[in-house]
Amino acid sequence: MKVLITGGAGFVGARLARTLLGAREGRLAGRRIEQLVLADQAAAPADLLADPRVQGRVGKLLEHAAALRDEPFDVVFHLASAVSGECEADFELGMTSNLDSTRALLDALRHRQQRTGAAPARLVFSSSIAVFGPDPAYPFPDVVGDDTLPTPQTSYGVQKHVCEHLIADYTRKGYVDGRAARLVTVTVRPGRPNGAASSFFSGIIREPLAGEEAILPVDPGVSHAVASPQSMVDGLVKVCEASREAFVGRSAMTMPGLNVTVQQMLDALAKVAGPRVRALVKPQRDERIAGIVANWPKGVTAKRAEALGIVAESSFEDIIRQYIADHRDHPTALKGLRELA
Amino acid sequence: MKVLITGGAGFVGARLARTLLGAREGRLAGRRIEQLVLADQAAAPADLLADPRVQGRVGKLLEHAAALRDEPFDVVFHLASAVSGECEADFELGMTSNLDSTRALLDALRHRQQRTGAAPARLVFSSSIAVFGPDPAYPFPDVVGDDTLPTPQTSYGVQKHVCEHLIADYTRKGYVDGRAARLVTVTVRPGRPNGAASSFFSGIIREPLAGEEAILPVDPGVSHAVASPQSMVDGLVKVCEASREAFVGRSAMTMPGLNVTVQQMLDALAKVAGPRVRALVKPQRDERIAGIVANWPKGVTAKRAEALGIVAESSFEDIIRQYIADHRDHPTALKGLRELA
Repeated sequence: MKVLITGGAGFVGARLARTLLGAREGRLAGRRIEQLVLADQAAAPADLLADPRVQGRVGKLLEHAAALRDEPFDVVFHLASAVSGECEADFELGMTSNLDSTRALLDALRHRQQRTGAAPARLVFSSSIAVFGPDPAYPFPDVVGDDTLPTPQTSYGVQKHVCEHLIADYTRKGYVDGRAARLVTVTVRPGRPNGAASSFFSGIIREPLAGEEAILPVDPGVSHAVASPQSMVDGLVKVCEASREAFVGRSAMTMPGLNVTVQQMLDALAKVAGPRVRALVKPQRDERIAGIVANWPKGVTAKRAEALGIVAESSFEDIIRQYIADHRDHPTALKGLRELA
Repeated sequence: MKVLITGGAGFVGARLARTLLGAREGRLAGRRIEQLVLADQAAAPADLLADPRVQGRVGKLLEHAAALRDEPFDVVFHLASAVSGECEADFELGMTSNLDSTRALLDALRHRQQRTGAAPARLVFSSSIAVFGPDPAYPFPDVVGDDTLPTPQTSYGVQKHVCEHLIADYTRKGYVDGRAARLVTVTVRPGRPNGAASSFFSGIIREPLAGEEAILPVDPGVSHAVASPQSMVDGLVKVCEASREAFVGRSAMTMPGLNVTVQQMLDALAKVAGPRVRALVKPQRDERIAGIVANWPKGVTAKRAEALGIVAESSFEDIIRQYIADHRDHPTALKGLRELA
């Protein structure tokens, strides 16, 4: 089978590719992956490009999408996205990257399905719990789930939710076999802070482990749903492999997360890496970030996803330990842990 | 002030224009209407074009929209739309007419607001209770309202709901001052049957009053929310004149309707026009239409709209009498009533 990952050079996309080719032995939904295309604005990691099954494509999805009409993809993981902070700062960027690109991808898959009469491509879309946002007129539940009314209060959340509805309709019409996974915040992200308002949820763990200070821009009482990169990737694979019937009349599904406060995250860091590492986190409130995060749910329930066997971690310590295990061979990433723990 | 009505030559649009210029004496939201532009694919009615304040524009909205960037509209009623049956039959038509056109209109208004720093144009969007649809996995409430989770099961419903969310975000960003009114089925529509699956809700009254047979394609037990053309128009004006605060964090509002069964509609027809007129309605089930209508809500509640003083009729007889009063001077429209009552 032929698989496309948009955003395939990114952190989640590359991990998904490694999981498919490695731990899952090149098989997906009972079939062998013959070709895995990683499309992204940056080049995919060298280890992936070295695999003969992998083809990298660099460029904007919106510009590539029309050409996809002639390619028989069996499965598409659509992960490419501008992040929440970028979309708030640059409205047109968000609309283009998150809405127009998804529409172009859907239309490419639709045109091929209509022209050839082939089975619709299976499409896994990375949505977000940012589709939920507090409408000032209505009580917002502390914990959101599949039956919560989405009233997103960010451009990112609106764009994701609009795509969910479009995917549901393209699916109902038989043009694609679409599934939208509403991801919780992935943590601990490797690398540097990005434009996402949620960036600090990784930064307050990653930077101290590397021996660097990290700014905490919100109150420690802030509660949030998080999941590790690997549980996120495993969840996306399970969403892909689920039967069409498991999604019934709607395509979107809330993914599980560990509902945790920032204080609990910091306590877990102290427990795993010691108080000196923990002390590298410095509170310094950022009203812009605090304001965006205040509009996010405090936690999730994920009944439908759990029925598919999709789970998140049950302890934040496990999430920190996954990051440490992932970075055993990256000495600078764990400099703080080594020198201060 | 300068007002635009898209779909301004249509039945609701023209009635809205006559109401604004006539009953409301050319005033809207406390200001005088200097110019009223009626944009549509067909020419506006001659009586409206004869008014010096009225300018008609014929053509597709998508092609006109960019030019709107340079026009200082204070209020836009965006009523132009492909109807539900058309959107189900022709997917691309629905996406272009209902989604792309609305997006182009929003972007035109946004560009002007951003370029000039002017107050955002007030935008009243005709959405539909077709945003609600029964998700097979979840119990669908008999009566839908502002807090019901929209899981539309038609392309039309998806397109309307997507536009609601885009309008909410353009509003949150300050580009427009948008409000989406989820209209119930307008009845009695004048003229001929159209492509809407709801067309028969008018046909079973209009055709018998004209002395013609009408086909009833669904069971008489089917329940639906309806409102008269005038209550619909009055509702749109009230939505326009409401304060921004009345809409708070979401732009969409369910409009009131009279929840009525087809049987009750037919009984009202017999009462107003007599049993011989009523007998012109012939049951002949149409599975396609029955299937679409089965996915619609059986009725509505409209708490938020009612708080703004928006009401529908409380008796279907009143709705029939409005149609009769509207057509006093159209002898063929009331031929059945005259000859058979």
